[in-house]
Amino acid sequence: MDMLQVFHMNKGEGDTSYAKNSTVQNKILSISKSFLEEAIEDSLTTFGNFPETMAIADLGCSSGPNTLMAVSEILDAVAERCLEFGCRKSPEFMVFLNDLPGNDFNEVFASLASFHAKLKEEKGAHFGPCFISGLPGGFHGRLLPNCCLHIVHSSSSLHWLSQVPAGLDDKENGEMANKGKIYLSKTSPKSVISAYMLQFRKDFMSFLKCRSKEVIPGGRMVLAFMGRTSTDPACEKATAHWDLIASTLMTMVSEGLVDEEKVDSFNVPYYAPCIEELKQMIGEEASFSLDRFEASEIDWDGGERMESSEETRGERIAKMHRAVVESMLDHHFGRLVVDQLFIRYSRIIDHLLSKQALKLINLFISLTRNPY
Amino acid sequence: MDMLQVFHMNKGEGDTSYAKNSTVQNKILSISKSFLEEAIEDSLTTFGNFPETMAIADLGCSSGPNTLMAVSEILDAVAERCLEFGCRKSPEFMVFLNDLPGNDFNEVFASLASFHAKLKEEKGAHFGPCFISGLPGGFHGRLLPNCCLHIVHSSSSLHWLSQVPAGLDDKENGEMANKGKIYLSKTSPKSVISAYMLQFRKDFMSFLKCRSKEVIPGGRMVLAFMGRTSTDPACEKATAHWDLIASTLMTMVSEGLVDEEKVDSFNVPYYAPCIEELKQMIGEEASFSLDRFEASEIDWDGGERMESSEETRGERIAKMHRAVVESMLDHHFGRLVVDQLFIRYSRIIDHLLSKQALKLINLFISLTRNPY
Repeated sequence: MDMLQVFHMNKGEGDTSYAKNSTVQNKILSISKSFLEEAIEDSLTTFGNFPETMAIADLGCSSGPNTLMAVSEILDAVAERCLEFGCRKSPEFMVFLNDLPGNDFNEVFASLASFHAKLKEEKGAHFGPCFISGLPGGFHGRLLPNCCLHIVHSSSSLHWLSQVPAGLDDKENGEMANKGKIYLSKTSPKSVISAYMLQFRKDFMSFLKCRSKEVIPGGRMVLAFMGRTSTDPACEKATAHWDLIASTLMTMVSEGLVDEEKVDSFNVPYYAPCIEELKQMIGEEASFSLDRFEASEIDWDGGERMESSEETRGERIAKMHRAVVESMLDHHFGRLVVDQLFIRYSRIIDHLLSKQALKLINLFISLTRNPY
Repeated sequence: MDMLQVFHMNKGEGDTSYAKNSTVQNKILSISKSFLEEAIEDSLTTFGNFPETMAIADLGCSSGPNTLMAVSEILDAVAERCLEFGCRKSPEFMVFLNDLPGNDFNEVFASLASFHAKLKEEKGAHFGPCFISGLPGGFHGRLLPNCCLHIVHSSSSLHWLSQVPAGLDDKENGEMANKGKIYLSKTSPKSVISAYMLQFRKDFMSFLKCRSKEVIPGGRMVLAFMGRTSTDPACEKATAHWDLIASTLMTMVSEGLVDEEKVDSFNVPYYAPCIEELKQMIGEEASFSLDRFEASEIDWDGGERMESSEETRGERIAKMHRAVVESMLDHHFGRLVVDQLFIRYSRIIDHLLSKQALKLINLFISLTRNPY
C-alpha cells in the first residue's frame, strides 16, 4: 500500500466525513494549546523579539473544522504576547499547511476566506498579515528549504508510519507473519512487534532529521500523537481498537463474508510509542531538546456527550474511526466489507462501553531546535 | 460577481475541461521560455551566484498540463546555467503555485509525484530539491511575506480584473451602461471604456505594488497576458471574441432564449492593455524596470492543426474559450444558456474562419525589481 497515494481522511462534509467525525482530534488540539502558548512565550524570551516573518508549519493538517485550529492557537498566543510586551508591530505569518497529496486541499482553501475575515475581526487590520499555503507531501521526507521554519506543529499524525513495516504483508516461508491481526497484539509473534518498532524508529528518526534541517536554531516543535504509558507495545490501551477491528473482520471471515487471506495480509501502518522510546531517539538524533512532555488519557469519543443524539456512543465512535481509516480499508477490502465491518464494530463498542470505559493515550511533546 | 469565489478554469479532465482545452495558453508559455531563460541568466550575472534557496511564484497557475510548464522552464534554465558555470551545488527551490481558491489544487497536487519523478530522472538526484506549495488567493493583493521571491512568473492571467469595473453592472439613471455588449466595444459609450481602463490601472498598479514588497531587489518578473498593439482599447483584435459572444447572446435574446436585461447587466472582468499603458504604469509605480517586451500575434486556436479531428476549428476554439469563461457565464446565465451559446458560437467562428484568419495579441514583459 502506497501511503502517499492511498491514505486520506474521509473527504467532504457527509455523515461519514472526517469533517463531521473529528471530535477526538479536536479534543487533542485543545490540550496542545498550552504547549503552543509556552513554545511561543519561550521563543520570544529566546530571541528577545518576534521575527519580521514567522514561518509556521502544521504537519498533517487534514481538512474540516480542525485544520486551522492549531494555527489559530499560535496566532492567538502571538497576539497576546505582542499586547503584553507592547511589540510595536506584529510579525507577518507564513503558514504551510501540510498533508498527504490525497488530502482535500480544495476544501481547506475554500475555508480560508472566512478564516481571514474572522482573524481581521478579532485581531484588527494591523495584526499579521497571515499568508497561508498548502504543502502536499509526506512529512517523513523533506518538505521545505533549509532553515526556514520557526514553529512546527503536528497533531494526530505522527503515529502513522510511512509504510506497513517490511515483511508483514508478504508471505515468509509460505506463512503470513501476523495472521488474524491488523496491528501488533498480545498474540503477535515477536518478529511482528520488532518490525513495528523498527519501522517507527526509522520514520521518527527520519522525521527529526528532516525537521532539523528546516527549523531554525531555537525554533520549536509541538507534537501530539497516539502513544502509551506502558513500555509494552502490545498493552491494551495502545492496541484495543485495532484488536477489535481485527476480531470483527475474523467474525466476518467465519461467516464467509471476507477472505481469511485478506485479513492475514492487511496490517496498519501505525505505531503508538511510549515516551521512553521517543526520549531515546530524540537524544540519539541530537538536533532537538525535549522541553516538556505529557501523556493524556482521552475517551474514545473525545469525552463528547450527546444525550439527545439518536446515535449510540458506539455508533459515533465507529464513525470517528471509520473517517480516519476508511481509505486504507476500502483500498484493501472493498467498500461492501467496510460498510458491514463498521456496523458490527459499533455494536461491539456499545457492548464494551456497557461494562467499561474505553480510553486511549495521547502523547504531547515540546522540542527546541538546538544551536548548530 | 465575486471573482475570488466564482472564477476558475473548467475543472477535471472531461471534454470541456481546461486541462483538455488549453492549447493557446500552452503556446503562450512556450513563447515565454526565452524571457524566463534571459531572466535567469541576468539574475546569475547580477548576483554572481544562485541563492541557496531560489523562491519562485507562478501566479495564475491553473490546473492541467500547463500548470508546471513555467516552473519546468525555470528549472531547466537554472540547470543549464549551473552546468555552464560549473556551480558546485544547485539551489534548492521553493515554488509557490498561486491561483484563486476555486482552482482545482487537488488535481495539481495529484500530479506532483510524476513531476518530481521526471525531474529526478532528467536532472539527477543532486539537482534541487524542489519544494512545491499551493498558494490560494488573488494576485491583486499580497500573497507572500516581504522580500521573499526571486522569480515571479504569470501567464494568461493578468488580463483578468479583480472585479467588473464599478458602475457597469448597476443601472445608472435607469439605464445599463453597456447594453448588448459584455466587454468594451466600438459602440460602447466612452464612460464604459474609461471604466475598464480605470479598473485595469487600479489592478495593475496594485499588482506591481504588492509584488514590489515580495520580490527581492534584483529579482525578476516575466509576465504574459492578452493585450493589443493598437492604442485604441476597442480595436478589433482586443475585443473580437467578446463581441462575438455578445452578439450570439443577443441573437438568443431575439429568439426568447435569454433575457435582454441579463445580457445588459453582464460584463467581463477583463482588459487587454497596450504596451504604452503598461510602460506608463511601471514608470509611475517605480519599483520595477522594464527590461524587455514583445507583442505576439497568435491564432485563436494557438496554431494547432488537427486535420484528422472530427471537430471543426470553430468547435475547438469554442471549447477553449468555454473552458476559461464558463464559470462566470454559468454563474450569471445558467448552464442551459451556456450550452446553447457555445454551439452557436462555434458555428459563427467556423463561418468567420472561412473568410479570414482570427488572431489575438499576447504581450510579454520582463521586469527587474529596482534596488530600494
